[in-house]
Amino acid sequence: MGKCDCNNQNKALGASSIMFGEPVRIMGSGSIVGQMENEGPLSGCFDKVSEDKNDMFGADSWEKAESELQKSAIAITLEKTGMSAKDIRYLFAGDLLGQNIASSFGVMDYNIPLFGLYGACSTCGESLSLGSMAIAGGFADTVISLTSSHFASAQKEFRFPLEYGGQRPLYASWTVTGSAGFLLQRNNVSNEMKTANSTFKNKICITGITTGRIEDFGIKDSFNMGCAMAPAAKWVIEGNLKDFGRTPCDYDAIFTGDLGNVGREALIKLLEDDDIDIRSRHYDCGMLIYDLEKQDVHAGGSGCGCSAVVLSSYILKKMDEGEWKRILFVPTGALLNKTSFNEGQNVPGIAHGIVIETID
Amino acid sequence: MGKCDCNNQNKALGASSIMFGEPVRIMGSGSIVGQMENEGPLSGCFDKVSEDKNDMFGADSWEKAESELQKSAIAITLEKTGMSAKDIRYLFAGDLLGQNIASSFGVMDYNIPLFGLYGACSTCGESLSLGSMAIAGGFADTVISLTSSHFASAQKEFRFPLEYGGQRPLYASWTVTGSAGFLLQRNNVSNEMKTANSTFKNKICITGITTGRIEDFGIKDSFNMGCAMAPAAKWVIEGNLKDFGRTPCDYDAIFTGDLGNVGREALIKLLEDDDIDIRSRHYDCGMLIYDLEKQDVHAGGSGCGCSAVVLSSYILKKMDEGEWKRILFVPTGALLNKTSFNEGQNVPGIAHGIVIETID
Repeated sequence: MGKCDCNNQNKALGASSIMFGEPVRIMGSGSIVGQMENEGPLSGCFDKVSEDKNDMFGADSWEKAESELQKSAIAITLEKTGMSAKDIRYLFAGDLLGQNIASSFGVMDYNIPLFGLYGACSTCGESLSLGSMAIAGGFADTVISLTSSHFASAQKEFRFPLEYGGQRPLYASWTVTGSAGFLLQRNNVSNEMKTANSTFKNKICITGITTGRIEDFGIKDSFNMGCAMAPAAKWVIEGNLKDFGRTPCDYDAIFTGDLGNVGREALIKLLEDDDIDIRSRHYDCGMLIYDLEKQDVHAGGSGCGCSAVVLSSYILKKMDEGEWKRILFVPTGALLNKTSFNEGQNVPGIAHGIVIETID
Repeated sequence: MGKCDCNNQNKALGASSIMFGEPVRIMGSGSIVGQMENEGPLSGCFDKVSEDKNDMFGADSWEKAESELQKSAIAITLEKTGMSAKDIRYLFAGDLLGQNIASSFGVMDYNIPLFGLYGACSTCGESLSLGSMAIAGGFADTVISLTSSHFASAQKEFRFPLEYGGQRPLYASWTVTGSAGFLLQRNNVSNEMKTANSTFKNKICITGITTGRIEDFGIKDSFNMGCAMAPAAKWVIEGNLKDFGRTPCDYDAIFTGDLGNVGREALIKLLEDDDIDIRSRHYDCGMLIYDLEKQDVHAGGSGCGCSAVVLSSYILKKMDEGEWKRILFVPTGALLNKTSFNEGQNVPGIAHGIVIETID
């Protein structure tokens, strides 16, 4: 633990990026989703799917159901990698609910030292950033990064009880019911620590990060989260390219978290204004998880769980199959709560960028 | 940036502690409080005090008032250390409000890359932990750790609107209106980066941390936060002593965040059961900030801002004057929200331990 190889230094790049001296391995991940998520294009890709149509996961409230999602995501992640909770040094976890209660009540039985995070729907990126920093900094051999969202608990938290039957505008997104955990580990685990079984044929690693800042373009409509978050995604993507000295072509694909089809167009146009063209290699997790033609989700999926379950069930698998060798993964979040919205405040956004590569 | 000295490795100790290879310097801090906080024993110690009796700080809502607290705390911290926002690589910030809105709207104008945190009233410890890890891991030269709470926004968030005039039991605590920021910097700043002016005569450093886990002793009463948090504080203090191979006497003082007088007795008794006696050297920030005899606060102060402003205005100053050479600082948090409480869930706790020393 705490090994230091002077040839493998972490490098702080530019405004807010880090290139890790030694890539941090993603050894495996576990995903669980609701029924509707499993009716979309990624059907069959998830590790576990809700057995009841209300996605209650055996709980008696929406909030407890979301906690069950996190509990299951950890259990699946541990099982797939052959690890147990005592092998995990830190947990980096967050969700969308007030005071992170889905995480608190979801993870506490595992007794893992916890850093609670809040970055709205960008939290998956934040948890992967801090988790990989903990390993690259020599503070831990093994950590889990974990996030969740639940459609019904999010509607209750941010908008209206479902029973109101409120009408959603076409640019609104649909909160994904799902959770995913990612087990990160250093390449050469210390003698006394356990090496996880990798669930991938290849070495899939986090090689760098770009940390986001809050961007506020004056959006007031909390349904229009895609446009609220697009400027933050733009700042991270542009910053990542500059800090690492790359062009979009250096990435086989660039994924945003949950901009949806309206936010995606905003992002592409914002980047075009700065002569950066990502259209041919950009995908949005919110548009990958649902069939926007057939499923009644309007602009796409959203929520802390959206980018997490798409990364776990789809992106990492495709990388392992060789479809993409280096990607930029940019979960996006809208910063608001009921009170800030009701008091007329704007909806600013934040995003966090993760560089993921298969390494020989 | 990213220097690596092989003689100064970070060491992961025991269950959840880290000893930093190179101590992380606290170069300065800035605190701002409400009027009531300045009427207690620490009167005159704070950098800035509310000018109006309602502690609105020029804002038109309680939530915006709390954002103003954070904005001021950063401004004071930057001014005292002679730094500007562009010199700060990362901000680690959190508060008690749903979806961290006090932080989001408080910090966004500074344009500093942000990690949003939630650890309830332990967030000050969490932000100092992750901030010092970022520096000790070679990811940043300079960061700010920042937290806040506001009495009125917290009452509205967790309990009742003040206008209800609800009666508080004697074991309840009083949420501190205050915010403090801490500027952390590596000892030898990279050539191209700016060295902060230290506001201390001595080198005051974070030399290690002990990360907490959630402890649930079945407390159901959200007013009894002292007893809800005491087991988490016990776990961190006991773990810290074991991981570092120390006894309570190796610390000149041990500070908890906001247990209050009821929680303090619970903590001392829990530790006594394990033959650990901290009574003579234990202080609680919630009992230091108010005069429990004369001010109508019942068990003491609480909130993310409580431990933060006491550390900034009192503990660090006393350390600089030589009163204490090595302390253990343990902010404590109660994990709940309105919904979890109303649905009958327990109130578990979490705490984060920070070892602070003056170094020759």
